[in-house]
Amino acid sequence: MLAKIRIIGLDPGLRNTGWGVIDVRGNHLTHIAHGVAHSTAEESLADRLCQLFQEILKVLQDFNPVEAAVEETFVNKNPLSTLKLGMARGVVLLAPSQHGIPVAEYAANRVKKTVVGVGHADKDQVAAMVQRLLPQAGKVKLDAADALAVAICHAHFRQSRHLYEEKYTA
Amino acid sequence: MLAKIRIIGLDPGLRNTGWGVIDVRGNHLTHIAHGVAHSTAEESLADRLCQLFQEILKVLQDFNPVEAAVEETFVNKNPLSTLKLGMARGVVLLAPSQHGIPVAEYAANRVKKTVVGVGHADKDQVAAMVQRLLPQAGKVKLDAADALAVAICHAHFRQSRHLYEEKYTA
Repeated sequence: MLAKIRIIGLDPGLRNTGWGVIDVRGNHLTHIAHGVAHSTAEESLADRLCQLFQEILKVLQDFNPVEAAVEETFVNKNPLSTLKLGMARGVVLLAPSQHGIPVAEYAANRVKKTVVGVGHADKDQVAAMVQRLLPQAGKVKLDAADALAVAICHAHFRQSRHLYEEKYTA
Repeated sequence: MLAKIRIIGLDPGLRNTGWGVIDVRGNHLTHIAHGVAHSTAEESLADRLCQLFQEILKVLQDFNPVEAAVEETFVNKNPLSTLKLGMARGVVLLAPSQHGIPVAEYAANRVKKTVVGVGHADKDQVAAMVQRLLPQAGKVKLDAADALAVAICHAHFRQSRHLYEEKYTA
């Protein structure tokens, strides 16, 4: 009998970070939970990062996944947006690592290709396919659907995945 | 008698994050400690962020500053460098916030103008001036000198500082 593995998928953003937890046993996927961690624009940047971090840590404690998968950040043309996204992403990568679980990363178009079949699928198509693959999830908000899609992608690729993306080497 | 305030300055980088702790009482500055938190390029990005975070948390626990000041990140022309710096910066801002202390941010040229007198001073000039202002510090590496310079800048501006940089509002 194949072991059951619990995976958390994360889609980073400073305002909204989607998260989704699934169980995978062989080819069988089960939806466990999903949601969106928010930070309040009125707070200082440091406090917003702290809000996201605390919310993600709570999800990790509540559901105890053993592997994490994070969507690779789109590098924006606006440097300030890229910097902000980088800050959110740093905190989103840190949380599972602090919790002691390995973190894999997947490019957005690989996630789409795995879940929808095409790399240029839009967010609505991803959400529709996530609901088909995880019918127990019910209606899922777009940010959380993206996070569940990353978790599904990791379930497919985890055997051969590279936990370390060489291009980030400083 | 004026109260003594302990300040930590931080200069974020994925490979090297400088830190410096000073005490300020009125106009009088005292050097307490300084150093550089490293992350190992061989580790995964998530683990590198975790290394930085743990090292900074340990410094906060060891020296117990009550206010933190972080140098504002230079927005690089290379989007991938900007993203990496953003991730390090996110973790560096998170650590003091998680520790419960307020975090102020200062632009690099404001730090240089405060410490050296000119906004375009180079790193060696900053280090030389830091050693003159904090003679107890002895010879200081450049990353740690930048961090001490941010702490000195905050000591000057803390009365009128804005803890929240509006331009980061998402």
